[in-house]
Amino acid sequence: MSRPPLSKDTRLCISLARRPSNIGTRFHNHLYEVLGLDFLYKAFTTTDIAAAIGGVRALGIRGCSVSMPFKEDVLGLVDTVEPSAARLRSVNTIVNDGGRLTASNTDYLAVQQLIDDHRLDPGQTVVIRGSGGMASAVGAAFADKGFGCGTVVARNRHAGPALADRLGYEFAADTAGPCRRRADILINVTPIGMAGGSEEHDAAFADDTLAGAHTVFDVVALPSETPLIAAARAAGVPVITGAEVIALQAAEQFERYTGVRPTPEQIAEASRVSRA
Amino acid sequence: MSRPPLSKDTRLCISLARRPSNIGTRFHNHLYEVLGLDFLYKAFTTTDIAAAIGGVRALGIRGCSVSMPFKEDVLGLVDTVEPSAARLRSVNTIVNDGGRLTASNTDYLAVQQLIDDHRLDPGQTVVIRGSGGMASAVGAAFADKGFGCGTVVARNRHAGPALADRLGYEFAADTAGPCRRRADILINVTPIGMAGGSEEHDAAFADDTLAGAHTVFDVVALPSETPLIAAARAAGVPVITGAEVIALQAAEQFERYTGVRPTPEQIAEASRVSRA
Repeated sequence: MSRPPLSKDTRLCISLARRPSNIGTRFHNHLYEVLGLDFLYKAFTTTDIAAAIGGVRALGIRGCSVSMPFKEDVLGLVDTVEPSAARLRSVNTIVNDGGRLTASNTDYLAVQQLIDDHRLDPGQTVVIRGSGGMASAVGAAFADKGFGCGTVVARNRHAGPALADRLGYEFAADTAGPCRRRADILINVTPIGMAGGSEEHDAAFADDTLAGAHTVFDVVALPSETPLIAAARAAGVPVITGAEVIALQAAEQFERYTGVRPTPEQIAEASRVSRA
Repeated sequence: MSRPPLSKDTRLCISLARRPSNIGTRFHNHLYEVLGLDFLYKAFTTTDIAAAIGGVRALGIRGCSVSMPFKEDVLGLVDTVEPSAARLRSVNTIVNDGGRLTASNTDYLAVQQLIDDHRLDPGQTVVIRGSGGMASAVGAAFADKGFGCGTVVARNRHAGPALADRLGYEFAADTAGPCRRRADILINVTPIGMAGGSEEHDAAFADDTLAGAHTVFDVVALPSETPLIAAARAAGVPVITGAEVIALQAAEQFERYTGVRPTPEQIAEASRVSRA
């Protein structure tokens, strides 16, 4: 298949970020080609988010992916905020139905889907490293799925305790506390282990903590095999990777924009192409 | 050449019209392909012109072609109005330079260019049939080039005299008056002779009027050989066709958006492709 020729009827989807990347543009356009959809996707930036969202509405732009620093600002600019975005006060996806804008957060939805897919048990304890926007999404997804016993581990002495408080979890300044010995699910939502970062070769949890875990979840997606994931596999601990989060949230976003759900294989191929 | 792969750096140009057509979309995208320019063009409509133009500014959309019914409304929504658009209170082209919007009217500019190219003499008398938006643009172009002696012939008893008044020309309700015997330049800006119209087979001026003319100018572009143009050629009277106006205004618009002036041959080919 290939994209139909560009015409007045072609639907446009965009992204808004302070620093646009080519990943979304490549990902979505690749799938439009593969699926023969009359859509077009392009990344934009703006210095006036209100006028930009007004333009999305007035021009009938079908979908708008939202990145930093606009994820909270757009809450007041749409017509409907779905629970996923309201819960986090953070939007990553806007769908335009004839001038009515609906905001959601597909990161949160993707993590909840992974909790189901991997049949994680809400009775298990959770340790989350990190306190940024994605840590909030991951933590809320777990808390809302009934995981009542958890710890937020973060260096940030403001964001860390605040996130723990919102989730009803405990806070710890480092992973060396008593929590680490009774953690069933270990989740990394920091840049530790990310390619090109200063902690590229580190694992977010120590090996002895790992050995007692039931599941290790690393939100870092580049590389897909972080030191933490590699160590978990070596220890025989089941893993959830950042690549799974990205693929699921992108599939969810793609379906909301186009009405078509790509297959997991199509998503994987589009992810590969978009990062090449 | 061909268009570079779509990326975050691709510039978007759009059109805004109540009823978008595919002509502009095909015309501009064809030339982007031919010239290897990293641009993309797509037609849009809107029910909120202020928010749409705000979106053009906030999203950094490079160019915006404006059609009915927005040509006057956008005057108050841009930062700079060039004389061509201010003169007519009618905009057909907006260029966005880093958030600053400049409005112009390339129809007016194209007609002025044709007056120069065909070396028309301002001492000659002009008869213009029609009193709509395009008749205003054509009339103003002639008046501003110093053609001081003219007549507006129109059925509309409000718009016709009003246009004549603005141009400092006389008004006549039909072409049978004394003016027709002393008209050097005959200009049709009505749908008479337009393909598919109710007057498709009619000529806007009678044969005996034609015989005394120095130049016949028919703004109707479809077909390029209207009954009026055919009759003028048969009578040996030099002609200016609607196709020339369209090609020149499109070239002007294209250059304002991209900084590149296509050759007349490229414009002709793009026009052909866009109407196929």
